Amino acid sequence: MGLTLGELAVRFGCELRGDPTVPILRVGTLSGAGSGELSFLANPHYRGQLERTRAAAVVLDAASASLCPQATAALVHSNPYATYARIAALLHPEPPAVAGAAPGAHIDASARVAPSASIGAGAVIGPRCTIGERVRIGAGCVLGADVRVGDDCRLHARVTLEAGTELGARVRLQSGAVVGSDGFGFARDGAGWTKVPQLGRVRIGADAEIGANTTIDRGAIEDTIIGAGVKLDNQIQVAHNVQIGEHTVIAACTGISGSTRIGRRCMIAGAVGIVGHLDICDDVVVTGMSMVSHSISTPGVYSGGIPAAPAGLWRRLVGRFKRLDALAGRVTRLERGAHSTDTRTHDDE
Amino acid sequence: MGLTLGELAVRFGCELRGDPTVPILRVGTLSGAGSGELSFLANPHYRGQLERTRAAAVVLDAASASLCPQATAALVHSNPYATYARIAALLHPEPPAVAGAAPGAHIDASARVAPSASIGAGAVIGPRCTIGERVRIGAGCVLGADVRVGDDCRLHARVTLEAGTELGARVRLQSGAVVGSDGFGFARDGAGWTKVPQLGRVRIGADAEIGANTTIDRGAIEDTIIGAGVKLDNQIQVAHNVQIGEHTVIAACTGISGSTRIGRRCMIAGAVGIVGHLDICDDVVVTGMSMVSHSISTPGVYSGGIPAAPAGLWRRLVGRFKRLDALAGRVTRLERGAHSTDTRTHDDE
Amino acid sequence: MGLTLGELAVRFGCELRGDPTVPILRVGTLSGAGSGELSFLANPHYRGQLERTRAAAVVLDAASASLCPQATAALVHSNPYATYARIAALLHPEPPAVAGAAPGAHIDASARVAPSASIGAGAVIGPRCTIGERVRIGAGCVLGADVRVGDDCRLHARVTLEAGTELGARVRLQSGAVVGSDGFGFARDGAGWTKVPQLGRVRIGADAEIGANTTIDRGAIEDTIIGAGVKLDNQIQVAHNVQIGEHTVIAACTGISGSTRIGRRCMIAGAVGIVGHLDICDDVVVTGMSMVSHSISTPGVYSGGIPAAPAGLWRRLVGRFKRLDALAGRVTRLERGAHSTDTRTHDDE
Repeated sequence: MGLTLGELAVRFGCELRGDPTVPILRVGTLSGAGSGELSFLANPHYRGQLERTRAAAVVLDAASASLCPQATAALVHSNPYATYARIAALLHPEPPAVAGAAPGAHIDASARVAPSASIGAGAVIGPRCTIGERVRIGAGCVLGADVRVGDDCRLHARVTLEAGTELGARVRLQSGAVVGSDGFGFARDGAGWTKVPQLGRVRIGADAEIGANTTIDRGAIEDTIIGAGVKLDNQIQVAHNVQIGEHTVIAACTGISGSTRIGRRCMIAGAVGIVGHLDICDDVVVTGMSMVSHSISTPGVYSGGIPAAPAGLWRRLVGRFKRLDALAGRVTRLERGAHSTDTRTHDDE
Repeated sequence: MGLTLGELAVRFGCELRGDPTVPILRVGTLSGAGSGELSFLANPHYRGQLERTRAAAVVLDAASASLCPQATAALVHSNPYATYARIAALLHPEPPAVAGAAPGAHIDASARVAPSASIGAGAVIGPRCTIGERVRIGAGCVLGADVRVGDDCRLHARVTLEAGTELGARVRLQSGAVVGSDGFGFARDGAGWTKVPQLGRVRIGADAEIGANTTIDRGAIEDTIIGAGVKLDNQIQVAHNVQIGEHTVIAACTGISGSTRIGRRCMIAGAVGIVGHLDICDDVVVTGMSMVSHSISTPGVYSGGIPAAPAGLWRRLVGRFKRLDALAGRVTRLERGAHSTDTRTHDDE
Repeated sequence: MGLTLGELAVRFGCELRGDPTVPILRVGTLSGAGSGELSFLANPHYRGQLERTRAAAVVLDAASASLCPQATAALVHSNPYATYARIAALLHPEPPAVAGAAPGAHIDASARVAPSASIGAGAVIGPRCTIGERVRIGAGCVLGADVRVGDDCRLHARVTLEAGTELGARVRLQSGAVVGSDGFGFARDGAGWTKVPQLGRVRIGADAEIGANTTIDRGAIEDTIIGAGVKLDNQIQVAHNVQIGEHTVIAACTGISGSTRIGRRCMIAGAVGIVGHLDICDDVVVTGMSMVSHSISTPGVYSGGIPAAPAGLWRRLVGRFKRLDALAGRVTRLERGAHSTDTRTHDDE
C-alpha cells in the first residue's frame, strides 16, 4: 500500500518540508532509496549519506533537516527513528494470517482458541490452553498444558511454551525460543546429584519480545518473570527465578543466572554474564562481554570487556598481567629503597 | 496428593520435631509457604527467612533446627536439599503420560517402541530406533535412524537426536536440545574448505540431563561421550569427540571445544570457554566466564573472569592494562637508577 | 562399499607406498584403525601414534611417510587432511534420501519442489517456495513464504528458514538453526520501545554450512549476507545486516553484532564477540573469547582472552588489576623522587 507524504505527515505528526502529493510506496536506506521510497536519519554519524540521498523523503529531526537535498522531502519529527518505525510498519504490514487451524495442527479438545487466532501446520496446543484473539502460532510450535497466550501475540515457527507459561498481550517470540524449560536445580547427593523439581512457571508481560533460540527457565518454586515491554535478543539464557523489569532490553548471547533481579529500563549489551542472586537496580547500562558479579545499586554504565589487540602484543600484555604480583613487589622494594642491593633486572624487554 | 509429616519423616529418614499428624500438600519458599506447605533451608544465608517463616514444616539440618519458629515443624536431615528434592518430587509428580503414539506421530515401521512409551504429537521416530519402557518423547521431537533411548528417558518438546545417538536410562533432555549434529570439521582445500565427514555418534550415560537448546556434536570418527549423571544446563556447546566424566555439572552458555576430556565430578560455571584437545582432571571447579586454555592436572578451583566496574574506572584500567609494557619498563629504569635522567612523567593523572 | 588402495590412489592422486590390492572398507583413528581401515596424519603432533598404528593404510604427506610402519601402506598427498575427507566421504556416503514428501509433510500448493527433492515428516514448505534438485529437507523443518533452496542443499531436522530466505547450492544447515528471524531493532519511544520492522532477508551463498542452533537475523532494510563457502559452527549469532565474506570460518558461540562486515578467508575462534558497525578486512584471525570492538584493516592474528589460573592467584591478579591506577601513581611518585617522604608500603604481600 502507498500513502502520500501529506497523509504520512498528518498521521504521524511530522512537519513536512516538501510536496504533500508525492506518493511513498516503501522504505529504503539513505544510500539505496530512490523514487517512491522513504528513509530516515537517526544517527548524526550518517549525515554524509543524507546529503547524497536520492530518497523521495527522509524522516529526521529539525537539527538535520537543513542538510536534506533539494529533491528530497523532509518529514521532521523530534523522534525520527520511532516515527520511521511506525511508517515502515504501515507501509510493510505483516502478511495476514488465516484464522483457524492449518492442516496438521494438533489442538487438544480442552483448549480454548479464539476464532480469530491462526494456528500453523504441525503446531501442538496442549490441554486447557487459552489462545487470545488474533494470535498467530507459527508452524511447529509446541504449547504444553495450561498455557495462556494473550491477544495479538505472535509466535514464529518452532517456539516451545512449556506447561503453565503465561504471555500478556502482543508478546512476540522468534523461532526456536524455549520458555518454561526446567531450571538447573540439582542437590548434591552422595557421589551424584538429585534433580530438584522445578515447579514454578514463566510469566511474560505485554509487549515483550523474545529472540530466536533464547531460553527462559521456569522458576524452582515461584515464577520467572519477564516484565512488560522487555526486549530480549537471540540466544539469551534466563535462569530460574530471574525477574527482569519493564522496558529493559538485552542483546544477544547474554546469560543471567538464577534468582537475579534486573531493574526497569536497563540496557544490557551482548555476551554479558550476570551471576546469580544479584540485584541490579533500574536504569543500569552494561557494556558488551562484561561479567557482573556483584549487585548494582547505582544507575550508570558498567563495563568489563577488554578490547582485542594484535596477538603478539596481547601475549605480552597477558604475560605482564600474570606477573602483576611481581611488578607490584618490585615497586614496593623501590619504595623501601631496597632495590639498590639487587642489580638483577626482571622482565624488561 | 498429601502426606503427613510423620509419613514424610519415616519415608525420608528425617528426625521430626513437631506434630506427625500435620498434613503436607505442597512445597513453598521460606518466605511464601503457609499452612499445608513445606519449605527447606539449605543455605545458612537464609536463616533470617527461616526465623520468620510461616511454613507448616521446614527441612533443615541439625545446626539450623533450633532457629525454626515454634509453629513450624522441623524435618531434620543431614542433607536437607536432597531430602527436600525427594519430598517435592513425591508431592508434585510429573503429570502422567498416556502410553502410545499421539495423533500425528510418525513412527517408522522398523522402530521398536515399548508399549509403555509415550510418543508426542508430530514426533518423528526413524528407522530401527529402539525406545525403552516408560519413555516420554515430547511433541515435535525428531529421532534419526538407529537411535537408542533407554528406559524412563524423557525428551521434552522439539528435541533432535540425530542418527545413532544412544541414551542410557533416565536421561532427560529439555526442549530444543540437539544431539548428534555434525562436528565442525573442515579441511583447508585451496581457497576454501572441504567437509570432513563426521562418522562418530553421541553416547549419553544414565541419569544425565541436557538443557534447553544445548548442542552436542557427534564424533568425527569415534564417539562423543557424556558420562552417567552429567548435568548440562541450557545453551551449552559440546564439540565433537569431547568426553565428559560422570557426575560433572556444567552451567549455561559454556562451550567445550573438540576432543577435550573433562573428568568426573567437575563443576564448570556458566559462559566458560574450554579450548580443544585438553585434559581436565577429576574434581576441577571452574568459575564463570573463564577461558581454560591449558590442561589441568590438579584438582582445585580455577578462575578467569574479571568483575565489571563503573565504565569510567574500567576504561582507565583497560588503558593501564594496555600500557603494562611501558609501566614495567619504567619500573626497570627506576631499578637501574636510570630514571634520574628523564624528568618526563608518563601516564599519571 | 570398499575400494582397493590402488583405486584410491588413482582416484585421489596419491602416491601409494604399499600393496595396491589391499581393500579399504572404512576409516578409523590412527590408534583405533585395523585391517581394512584407513587413517590419516595431518598434524605432526600425532607422529607417535603413526609409528604405532595398525591401520591398513594412512594418508599423509611426504615428510611423514617414512614413519609409517612396515605393515601399513602410505597414501602420500600434499594435502592429507582434505584427501582423507574425500576418501571418507566416498567410503561412508550419507544414507540415500527417498525422493518425495514423507507422510505428514505440509507443502503449500504454490511451492515448486523438484521431483528429486526429499521432504521429511512434518516439514512445512510455505507459499511460493522453490526447492531445488536433490535437496533434503529434514523432519520438522519450517520454510516460510518465498524461500529459495538451491540444488543439493541439506537441511537437518527442525531448521527454520523464515520468509524470503535464499540458499545457494549445496548449503547445509544443522538441526535447530534459525535463518531469517527478526533483527533486534527497537526505537526508544517514551518509556518504552517501538519495534522497527525488519524488512530485509538472509541470503546464503553456495557451499556454506550453518551449525546447530545458530541464528541469523534478517536485515532491517537490506539483506544479511553469508558468503559462499562460509562455515559457521553451532550456536553462533549473526545480527541483522551483517555480511560475512567467502570462505570465512567461525567457531561455536561467537556473536556478531549488527551491520558488521567480516572479510573473506577470516578465521574467528569460539566465543568471540564482535561489536556492531565494524569492518574486518580479509584474512583476519581472531583467537578464542576475544572482544573485537574496533574495525581491523590489517590482516593478522588478534587476541583478547586471558587464560584462567588457580583461583587464589587469579583473585590476587584481579586485585592488582583493579589497583593499576594506584600502582602507576606509585611509579610516577618514585620517578619524581617524591617517594622518600612516604614510608608507607601499599599493597605488597
